[in-house]
Amino acid sequence: MNEISKWLINGVPGESVSIRDRGFTYGDGLFETIAVRNGKPRFIDYHMERLLESCQRLGIPYPTGVADEVCRIADGCAFGTVKIILTRGVGMRTYSPPEQTIPTRIVGLIATQPPSRVAYESGITVRFCRTHTSTNSTLAGIKTLGRLEQVIARSEWQDTHIREGLMCSDDGRVISGTMTNLFFVDDGTLCTPDLARCGINGVMRRVVMEQARLCGLDCDEVDIYPKELRGMEEVFLTNSLIGIWPISQLEETGLEIGSITRGLMAELVNVGVAECTL
Amino acid sequence: MNEISKWLINGVPGESVSIRDRGFTYGDGLFETIAVRNGKPRFIDYHMERLLESCQRLGIPYPTGVADEVCRIADGCAFGTVKIILTRGVGMRTYSPPEQTIPTRIVGLIATQPPSRVAYESGITVRFCRTHTSTNSTLAGIKTLGRLEQVIARSEWQDTHIREGLMCSDDGRVISGTMTNLFFVDDGTLCTPDLARCGINGVMRRVVMEQARLCGLDCDEVDIYPKELRGMEEVFLTNSLIGIWPISQLEETGLEIGSITRGLMAELVNVGVAECTL
Repeated sequence: MNEISKWLINGVPGESVSIRDRGFTYGDGLFETIAVRNGKPRFIDYHMERLLESCQRLGIPYPTGVADEVCRIADGCAFGTVKIILTRGVGMRTYSPPEQTIPTRIVGLIATQPPSRVAYESGITVRFCRTHTSTNSTLAGIKTLGRLEQVIARSEWQDTHIREGLMCSDDGRVISGTMTNLFFVDDGTLCTPDLARCGINGVMRRVVMEQARLCGLDCDEVDIYPKELRGMEEVFLTNSLIGIWPISQLEETGLEIGSITRGLMAELVNVGVAECTL
Repeated sequence: MNEISKWLINGVPGESVSIRDRGFTYGDGLFETIAVRNGKPRFIDYHMERLLESCQRLGIPYPTGVADEVCRIADGCAFGTVKIILTRGVGMRTYSPPEQTIPTRIVGLIATQPPSRVAYESGITVRFCRTHTSTNSTLAGIKTLGRLEQVIARSEWQDTHIREGLMCSDDGRVISGTMTNLFFVDDGTLCTPDLARCGINGVMRRVVMEQARLCGLDCDEVDIYPKELRGMEEVFLTNSLIGIWPISQLEETGLEIGSITRGLMAELVNVGVAECTL
């Protein structure tokens, strides 16, 4: 915990919440993790769009002004992360949401170090997790506070050479990594798992799909199974704080870092994801 | 919020937790809700068994001595609820569990009023929710802090005559109520939804199944769909704080409070669930 961080709770410096906060008692809330580069939050509009859409789906009032708060806290930070946590606030001791919601809004800045170049240049080693990701069309796509399945999946391995684990749904489809979205190239076509029933709709996933489209490359949202994934030409992972990590080793299967992956990494550099520079 | 309550956090009176507590950031924890009657926590051994098994499944150290703490806080309370919240404690800003877990243990007592007799005597009105419950064999059965789907389901109706809503999985099976387990009688056989992939393994569900068995009535764990449920002879709900609530109205379908439901309510009274007295 050598990270330098500062936190605002409803605009006031603080580091604790009520044990009656519904974010704590029920996971009744959302979060966003936003990269900060040279004092600016990256893709802030996309994060805010996702937060707004999630608020609407969950019936939590959208915190007007949070984008400004993010920009203010990020100002002056060369390299770091802003985390937003938004909950339905303190509530009664029942699942029933309070009649009048006063959300808890937490905005924090964590100064970090730029990541190692190795993952970008040589690709990463990835495993499959035994822990499944939940299937629930009501909550699919939303970055809710309920992330226990990712925690359990991440606890499956300690080997630091393995940078990420892939998670499947109960019906055997590969959905995502524990903290990343998945892409692959199938016979020249860029594809990513369909998130209608599972998974988180990542901001970097959206950026990659848009950049691909601008290059004339459509991206299909499909069902994919572990056996099929091992046979794909290119496989890579995305995350707001990372950009793209190519996969060079998927359990026993070695993979090349192909031209589509390299091309998309170069496109990301052009839109501000400098860590993808090769 | 006129309830009288007192809370202990790791044995010390308090009402707030760190915003870095993994219970808050990731729903990385568990809870139990235990009925208190005449100064004693009801079915405490069963609650502790479930907590222990859940701790083992999630890799959270079991809080030795928590049963004593529950008994001490319940002492002197005529009618109320003890809530236990157990989290993986304060941790790093990643899904990866900390190398050394120092759990956060919260034990609270809420003094409440005995429930209205109407639900027991006349049965309750129940609806089906649009919100689905998650399918995830890794977490099925566990009472985790991630209860957002129940919150959203419960927000679907405000009509106070409707006491509970039933939730289905994405594949259309009826799994449970938002805060209750479901039982029904199918051609004379007691049945309850199978919880291998969804739902919470309720303590009162266990008590009812055991009492049924002692009466020579086996309980089958099955798959059931909404259309089928409407045709069942008897349908009832269970919960640690309630005992049994018979369903007399399932949307448009009127249901009788049958002899098996009445018999099980009488058995519950014999094991300390006095609110089921008819």
